Amino acid sequence: MQLELTEKPKSPVIIEGFPGFGLVGTIATEFLIKHLGAKQIGKIWSEDILPIAAVHDSKIVEPLGVFYDKKNNIVIIHALSAVRGMEWKISNSILELAEMLKSKEIISLEAIGTEDQEGMRTFYFTSQDSKRKQFEDCGMAPLKEGMIMGVTGALLLKKRDLVSAIFIESHVSLGDSKAAARVIEILDKYLGLKVDFKPLLKAAQEFESTLKRIIEKGQKAAVQKKRKELSYLG
Amino acid sequence: MQLELTEKPKSPVIIEGFPGFGLVGTIATEFLIKHLGAKQIGKIWSEDILPIAAVHDSKIVEPLGVFYDKKNNIVIIHALSAVRGMEWKISNSILELAEMLKSKEIISLEAIGTEDQEGMRTFYFTSQDSKRKQFEDCGMAPLKEGMIMGVTGALLLKKRDLVSAIFIESHVSLGDSKAAARVIEILDKYLGLKVDFKPLLKAAQEFESTLKRIIEKGQKAAVQKKRKELSYLG
Amino acid sequence: MQLELTEKPKSPVIIEGFPGFGLVGTIATEFLIKHLGAKQIGKIWSEDILPIAAVHDSKIVEPLGVFYDKKNNIVIIHALSAVRGMEWKISNSILELAEMLKSKEIISLEAIGTEDQEGMRTFYFTSQDSKRKQFEDCGMAPLKEGMIMGVTGALLLKKRDLVSAIFIESHVSLGDSKAAARVIEILDKYLGLKVDFKPLLKAAQEFESTLKRIIEKGQKAAVQKKRKELSYLG
Amino acid sequence: MQLELTEKPKSPVIIEGFPGFGLVGTIATEFLIKHLGAKQIGKIWSEDILPIAAVHDSKIVEPLGVFYDKKNNIVIIHALSAVRGMEWKISNSILELAEMLKSKEIISLEAIGTEDQEGMRTFYFTSQDSKRKQFEDCGMAPLKEGMIMGVTGALLLKKRDLVSAIFIESHVSLGDSKAAARVIEILDKYLGLKVDFKPLLKAAQEFESTLKRIIEKGQKAAVQKKRKELSYLG
Amino acid sequence: MQLELTEKPKSPVIIEGFPGFGLVGTIATEFLIKHLGAKQIGKIWSEDILPIAAVHDSKIVEPLGVFYDKKNNIVIIHALSAVRGMEWKISNSILELAEMLKSKEIISLEAIGTEDQEGMRTFYFTSQDSKRKQFEDCGMAPLKEGMIMGVTGALLLKKRDLVSAIFIESHVSLGDSKAAARVIEILDKYLGLKVDFKPLLKAAQEFESTLKRIIEKGQKAAVQKKRKELSYLG
Repeated sequence: MQLELTEKPKSPVIIEGFPGFGLVGTIATEFLIKHLGAKQIGKIWSEDILPIAAVHDSKIVEPLGVFYDKKNNIVIIHALSAVRGMEWKISNSILELAEMLKSKEIISLEAIGTEDQEGMRTFYFTSQDSKRKQFEDCGMAPLKEGMIMGVTGALLLKKRDLVSAIFIESHVSLGDSKAAARVIEILDKYLGLKVDFKPLLKAAQEFESTLKRIIEKGQKAAVQKKRKELSYLG
Repeated sequence: MQLELTEKPKSPVIIEGFPGFGLVGTIATEFLIKHLGAKQIGKIWSEDILPIAAVHDSKIVEPLGVFYDKKNNIVIIHALSAVRGMEWKISNSILELAEMLKSKEIISLEAIGTEDQEGMRTFYFTSQDSKRKQFEDCGMAPLKEGMIMGVTGALLLKKRDLVSAIFIESHVSLGDSKAAARVIEILDKYLGLKVDFKPLLKAAQEFESTLKRIIEKGQKAAVQKKRKELSYLG
Repeated sequence: MQLELTEKPKSPVIIEGFPGFGLVGTIATEFLIKHLGAKQIGKIWSEDILPIAAVHDSKIVEPLGVFYDKKNNIVIIHALSAVRGMEWKISNSILELAEMLKSKEIISLEAIGTEDQEGMRTFYFTSQDSKRKQFEDCGMAPLKEGMIMGVTGALLLKKRDLVSAIFIESHVSLGDSKAAARVIEILDKYLGLKVDFKPLLKAAQEFESTLKRIIEKGQKAAVQKKRKELSYLG
Repeated sequence: MQLELTEKPKSPVIIEGFPGFGLVGTIATEFLIKHLGAKQIGKIWSEDILPIAAVHDSKIVEPLGVFYDKKNNIVIIHALSAVRGMEWKISNSILELAEMLKSKEIISLEAIGTEDQEGMRTFYFTSQDSKRKQFEDCGMAPLKEGMIMGVTGALLLKKRDLVSAIFIESHVSLGDSKAAARVIEILDKYLGLKVDFKPLLKAAQEFESTLKRIIEKGQKAAVQKKRKELSYLG
Repeated sequence: MQLELTEKPKSPVIIEGFPGFGLVGTIATEFLIKHLGAKQIGKIWSEDILPIAAVHDSKIVEPLGVFYDKKNNIVIIHALSAVRGMEWKISNSILELAEMLKSKEIISLEAIGTEDQEGMRTFYFTSQDSKRKQFEDCGMAPLKEGMIMGVTGALLLKKRDLVSAIFIESHVSLGDSKAAARVIEILDKYLGLKVDFKPLLKAAQEFESTLKRIIEKGQKAAVQKKRKELSYLG
């Protein structure tokens, strides 16, 4: 896993959003990047990542891109790739990034599946007592018990002092733009971003449907690929 | 597999409890840590361990934590992670710990599945004749025949002179707090810990239900994760 | 993955056609090689490739052959082998080839599966704005959203500035000579090859049926091989 | 795979008995060790072996133990572990042992499955013509055709001059003490061991039922273990 | 993969026969070795080969043996082992052998499965135009299209100039002695071996039935082995 950067902002807050449940992390970081006009300053890279190039708005989207919003001094890690089996390595790259930029906080956006059709409760995890009030003022309850998997789980096991995790309940497994919009509202409060809320849900829904279309194409292609592998020319 | 210690007590008894059957080892060591007020002095660590951060009482629990109770000079290894395929490596780390601390006894807590709904018989294994009477005085019978798997099996094959194993029958595969409480009673007798028995069973039951809740969440998450892997964004 | 060349043309356009959906890439590059009288100047090679020698016109066809048409200064990579799991490595070899020959454009021919029985729409992807008009003049629409897999996906993630990709819809999973012929028409326009169109479709159909015969033999052999593996002499 | 020895007898006959079909090799070598009062002088060892400690008569039994009977100058390799995938490595360790001790003969005890309920025919394999008569005098027929798998197969491919193999038909897949007793009779004749035959069958039956009990416990444990792996704490 | 030779004949023709479809290659080379009285001069060897010792005529048969017939200056590679996954490595060893002995021709004997119950057509492949007439005079047609797998496929991809391949149709998947006999007739013509044809078919049938018996025993053993693996002592 390699970290490539073209620019090195100083002491930014780092926000990471991996697809996870409901694609919430990906939709939310996508919105942030667009809304804040963040520009790409690098990527996390390895040949262990699947060789799949996503095209969005006629442009290639990196599987793991690193973006920067100068105004708010925020670095955003946007993931559009399966990362299973690479969680430790990716978390190492994120920690390397944090150290290189002298970042003091990594905010992980993560969805939790729920059977509850109504619920969109939000939780936080921090090991810094000083931050609890701030999170609770944003309307979140502490995560008291649970198991956190994926890159966020790896980050917490490796360097919990640095990581603030925001969890949102979602009951939609493929593309939950409402949950993503709710996460943005919380982030806005927590970081004082002054996001314009009017276009938020609509934009999130658009990202959601684009992602779904891309994924459906990908799945169709995958099915076809599978079929072809039965032949010797694949 | 790495062993990280912040403190090096001298010649402690080491107690190890891996989840095993009925989670007995984990529930029992959890109770001991709480009851004795043992504090964390290190961990056993490797990126072969699944990147899953358990949260308990709003705190991250290490997959393999090392705790110390100064009063009784006891080191407790508490495991909250699957270890399949890592048994040899973990046993090597435990033996490294024993050597570093000049420990003279590793006590393994292990449950044995039984079909017998009543039974909660206990057995011991030791290769030290001098210890047999002591174990039998605590109400245990010798394990005459059987196959011991997992980290305890690996420890016995590597360094049987150092290892005392306590086995308890359990017919509950997921969370047997009664068996865990019984193991604590035996340990109390064997080590003279003077455990306050009144809260024992109740506390063990609480740990059991907490563990179950955590596990259920973990499984739900795992199922959802599985579902997501069908897509390309996982 | 090794690149072996007997000749090093200067600044050629490189065309790559991997079997993909409908074998379109393979049929199209096969036609080009025959029609332009391109000669083999090398191969891409690795023992990770399946040890299967295809025989065509009583000659061995390389799994991954490199051909050269001097007149048009075109290098053609012709693939007759499954490449799954080798996409990054093969894309590295192609980029090595491009760098060695100082090639300024790699044209990837790729089919996209569609359910639409009629459709044979074509799309392009380029990251060079200067090329968009040229592609559109050839009758293609830009690929706005999608997921590009295989060697073409890997090439785009590694070096998008160099890669022009042509996509054609195909609903035939095994051998779509019509789509391949259409791709040739587009390439002809784009590169000004002055292909003689009369024999095009017929030739493509012949390649298609040859490939199908070869594949069917291969599959029969594979089935038989499978059966044999049940014995100890396989 | 490591060979550890505490003692190095000179020019012993080496007898190896791996569990194989009907556990014949293990039951027979177990009887020999007990009957001859052979003592453990080492082990063959690797972390590729499953971390399972068998307990028998309240003692740990090595997965691959090396025993020595001084009176008859016999080294016995006793195996109580699955060795699949390690056949070459274990055969290398046995040949290392033979060379180190300047042993001139390795006798392999091996059972062959048969559908014949009556049959308990015995066969031998040797590449030394000088030994044929001796084997035939013990009541065995030559193995004319067949396929020999496992450690014995590996030994024969590596160093056939050194290996004498004794095969016995068995129709009981799990614990055939009769076949094991018959093998001991043959070995007794061949090596002139003067085994006391009265306790033979009874002892073999006892080993058989002990082994079965141990295995059943092991399997029950395995099933339980499997069940547990569904959870995250296993 | 290692090549071990006790003798180095000069410029022999090398004949290789791997089991393949109908065991044709193995039966044919077996016949040749017996009929010509060729003696073993080496083997191709690796611990990747399954540790299975075949016994034939009370002798161990190497999985991959190298034999020499001095009179006709022919080296024969006789294979009695599954080679899947080792095709490249074995072909490298055969090419190493060819280079070491300065051999100018490797003749590959290979069967092709056919559904046609009657057919036993023969084909050849050569990249040497000078040899075509000779092959056609022996009654073979050129292989115009197809996919050649296994060691022969690997040899053709690596060093086609050196390889002459003879293909025979066979519709019997397990032991086709008629096809093997036919291959010998062709080889006899091509190499002028003056084989005595009277015993040919009968001998081939005997090899076939021996091989079948050996394989059946092997399969029975394999099934039993499989069953045993369910236990912990395997």
